[in-house]
Amino acid sequence: MGERKKIIIDTDPGIDDAMAIFVALNSPEVDVIGLTTIFGNVYTTLATRNALHLLEVAGRTDIPVAEGTHQTFLNEKKVRIADFVHGKDGLGNQNFPPPKGKPIEKSGPEFLVEQAKLYPGEITVVALGPLTNIALAIQLDPEFSKNVRQIVILGGAFAVNGNVNPASEANIFGDPEAADIVFTCGADIIAVGINVTHQVIMSADDKDKLASSNGKLAQYLCKILNVYYAYHLEAYEIKGVYLHDPATILAAFLPSLFTYTEGVARVQTSGITRGLTILYNNLKKFEEVTEWSNKPSIKVAVTVDAPAVLKLIMDRLMES
Amino acid sequence: MGERKKIIIDTDPGIDDAMAIFVALNSPEVDVIGLTTIFGNVYTTLATRNALHLLEVAGRTDIPVAEGTHQTFLNEKKVRIADFVHGKDGLGNQNFPPPKGKPIEKSGPEFLVEQAKLYPGEITVVALGPLTNIALAIQLDPEFSKNVRQIVILGGAFAVNGNVNPASEANIFGDPEAADIVFTCGADIIAVGINVTHQVIMSADDKDKLASSNGKLAQYLCKILNVYYAYHLEAYEIKGVYLHDPATILAAFLPSLFTYTEGVARVQTSGITRGLTILYNNLKKFEEVTEWSNKPSIKVAVTVDAPAVLKLIMDRLMES
Repeated sequence: MGERKKIIIDTDPGIDDAMAIFVALNSPEVDVIGLTTIFGNVYTTLATRNALHLLEVAGRTDIPVAEGTHQTFLNEKKVRIADFVHGKDGLGNQNFPPPKGKPIEKSGPEFLVEQAKLYPGEITVVALGPLTNIALAIQLDPEFSKNVRQIVILGGAFAVNGNVNPASEANIFGDPEAADIVFTCGADIIAVGINVTHQVIMSADDKDKLASSNGKLAQYLCKILNVYYAYHLEAYEIKGVYLHDPATILAAFLPSLFTYTEGVARVQTSGITRGLTILYNNLKKFEEVTEWSNKPSIKVAVTVDAPAVLKLIMDRLMES
Repeated sequence: MGERKKIIIDTDPGIDDAMAIFVALNSPEVDVIGLTTIFGNVYTTLATRNALHLLEVAGRTDIPVAEGTHQTFLNEKKVRIADFVHGKDGLGNQNFPPPKGKPIEKSGPEFLVEQAKLYPGEITVVALGPLTNIALAIQLDPEFSKNVRQIVILGGAFAVNGNVNPASEANIFGDPEAADIVFTCGADIIAVGINVTHQVIMSADDKDKLASSNGKLAQYLCKILNVYYAYHLEAYEIKGVYLHDPATILAAFLPSLFTYTEGVARVQTSGITRGLTILYNNLKKFEEVTEWSNKPSIKVAVTVDAPAVLKLIMDRLMES
């Protein structure tokens, strides 16, 4: 057990968040030491409720949930919620009963800072929503970027159209200022963008396979997945769903399922492309100093072994 | 001769502008009915001087030169000049004597509007610099977008890093507001970005071939090309030069050398990605109305038959 990677999942559940959390809980490679919650697919209050609920479904109420911020890094109270993707309740409009558990006293950013200090160089943070909690942790503790082992981010649309608008991917769009702080904080970072996660598709047939398995988590997921399939059919005209969050969870402990490029990534924070991510590929020496000059590099996923990722996700979700 | 396409070249010569102008003058498919000048590789005053000089070198002083604006569309007097690419004189630091000719009385934008009105549906404008003159023509005459046959633009970095900084290509960066006006004006537009022109490379061997030909234009170009090769070696570590402008000229009358995608292209005008071009590929239906919604589409080059383009450019430059 000493070999397990300690991970904290920052999450806004969210249907594919639920899948990602279940994959992590069924993965012997990792030890999920906590969930922190954030707005995105739902408001933070509901994200916390859903996180507690999902841990109860999985029988893992031993894992603490720390509620994250309700506002953006710039303290904007209005946040963008993608309930049209995941249902009003974030979990496929199933109206599950409220969870019995409660979040811990510490806030999400406080929990992140505390755990990274407690286990320096050991904690992998997997960020599946807007990056506000992570940016707040960096602000709370300048050593956080060094204390953390790695930050694995689902976010960005590198050299492809976004999913909120042609420029911007939803998690980055949710808090561009926070994302730019995190991308340039100097921590060991992997960003997995929709240029990669759009290659990992769970088909309708795959869902049937889940449904016919005996796994209780698979059975649960089949109930909530219909809304997610309906959204993909409407928005993308595909009979399948993108596995953004579960694919990203795998990058945290099976990184060789992806290939990466390295460079400085920045986020545009104003104008019509607010939320856009631009990675500098280091191929040209520019005449002028740029906003990418002398900033720390991150790793950005460029390819994925999609069949292997899909199989792993399916296998782990079908375990009972 | 009635079959020749009438083209006006909006240009900031510039070494590869010189190549493009010579290619056009040696192409039986087109009739160059005028040059308009713009800042970019050099200031507008020098662009006008160089345009007149190049026509004298080619023995085509019958072609009028109309001087364009010295300022950006927002009347900024400070413009970005890429003299480190083309030499202080824009033509490889050769200190050619001043031209004998003079520009016509009409300004560049006035000439564009006049010719498009005179030959409705017949004029192809090939824009090789920042798009200020074209945007001013649109402002001068709301019918210009309809009167013009096509606008073929060297500009943009579609889904790749720019060449001024990681976000922005030089011609768009030179006047982002103008570029956004032109891209969304409703005219028939082809944009050829550096994602495509970076595939059309003239090697050192190709230059030797030019040098060994008898063509007077080829001989002239060999004198001015050294600075351009030196810049590419320094900035890109390649022993060759990108044929941005000559490749774009070919798109104006041999469009099948390229393939295209269609969509709405917008330009970011603020922040760290000022000058960035984003094309919406129409693959996703977005939940919200976006800044790309209900705007006219343009064609953007996505592939190029690079060997064929290079051969055509070489052949036409080596004609005497």
